[in-house]
Amino acid sequence: MAAPKSFINLVQQLSILPGVGEKTAERYAYSLLEREYEEIEELSKALLEFKKNIKNCSICGCLTDNETCDICEDKSRDTSTICIVEDSKNVFFIEKTKKYNGLYHVLNGLISPMDGKNPEDLNISNLVNNRISDDIKEIIIALNPSIEGEVTSLYLQKVLEKHNVKVSRLSYGIPMGGDIEYLDPIMVSKAWDDRKVIS
Amino acid sequence: MAAPKSFINLVQQLSILPGVGEKTAERYAYSLLEREYEEIEELSKALLEFKKNIKNCSICGCLTDNETCDICEDKSRDTSTICIVEDSKNVFFIEKTKKYNGLYHVLNGLISPMDGKNPEDLNISNLVNNRISDDIKEIIIALNPSIEGEVTSLYLQKVLEKHNVKVSRLSYGIPMGGDIEYLDPIMVSKAWDDRKVIS
Repeated sequence: MAAPKSFINLVQQLSILPGVGEKTAERYAYSLLEREYEEIEELSKALLEFKKNIKNCSICGCLTDNETCDICEDKSRDTSTICIVEDSKNVFFIEKTKKYNGLYHVLNGLISPMDGKNPEDLNISNLVNNRISDDIKEIIIALNPSIEGEVTSLYLQKVLEKHNVKVSRLSYGIPMGGDIEYLDPIMVSKAWDDRKVIS
Repeated sequence: MAAPKSFINLVQQLSILPGVGEKTAERYAYSLLEREYEEIEELSKALLEFKKNIKNCSICGCLTDNETCDICEDKSRDTSTICIVEDSKNVFFIEKTKKYNGLYHVLNGLISPMDGKNPEDLNISNLVNNRISDDIKEIIIALNPSIEGEVTSLYLQKVLEKHNVKVSRLSYGIPMGGDIEYLDPIMVSKAWDDRKVIS
């Protein structure tokens, strides 16, 4: 005799979460038993609301509950700078640093021929065709320093070359708290190239 | 500027799962973005159905979608044996071994004065008052060999003494694949006491 149907069904459904196998899903299900009905209802509602409301901003591609995102709508931001990132996660993360007050452009992916991801699969044409004007003074490329990130950076650099706009990228370097002898040689050589005169 | 409301709300709601912090909840939320609306709907529904339907069997205390569980309702089972376990998880696990064809009684907890769990908080009176009759030939105590498990075992032993019924417990021993020198001494001494004559 196995567990009740509603239990087995929930375990199966919870297994769609990344890294959640049968054991973890069962642990989740047992823990939900201890919760009030209202709490489960809230979770159930949050899932539906999330899936119903969330979309990509029609300007920058970032996640938003509206047609355009709060950042694109914010008139107090510096509209002369655009920071290009891989996904919305990066936007929310950079926002936490409070370092940057410009606009973003979310590619929603990186070029990766191995995974069948070509430039036309990314949110690039909207950037080039609709967002770059004489008002834009700088484009900051803030992609991960992976192979896919480098390839995408180079591609963007080429595409943006035709436009009269300054293009920069984040500096590569030794991460704070990192130990030089444990970094991989490519990282160190990148930090070498990006070295900064200090006196 | 932070993430959209529906996103933040979902992350918050997912954090009620055990061991799920903000980072993991965010990972779950991003992964749900890639899923079809129908899949999220299924998950959302499974949560509600689970919480609505699941209850404890009025006879043995095991989780069930009905008033009484499939095991208690199964006329082909041996109704002369009752196996006492801590929770429903144990029932489903023992069922997987296909070793046992009797009935169960789920305590839904163990005696633990430290956590304010006394005998009257467990599903014991229903066992003693309603389930033990002359038809019951054996009661098998299958509790974890923890301090709480031992205390509960001893308590049950005392309560069941007054009834004319054979009471047994699972044997303690070296787990298959275990290494004697890495077991704790109490475990080894228990295995010593439960040793079996083999020739």
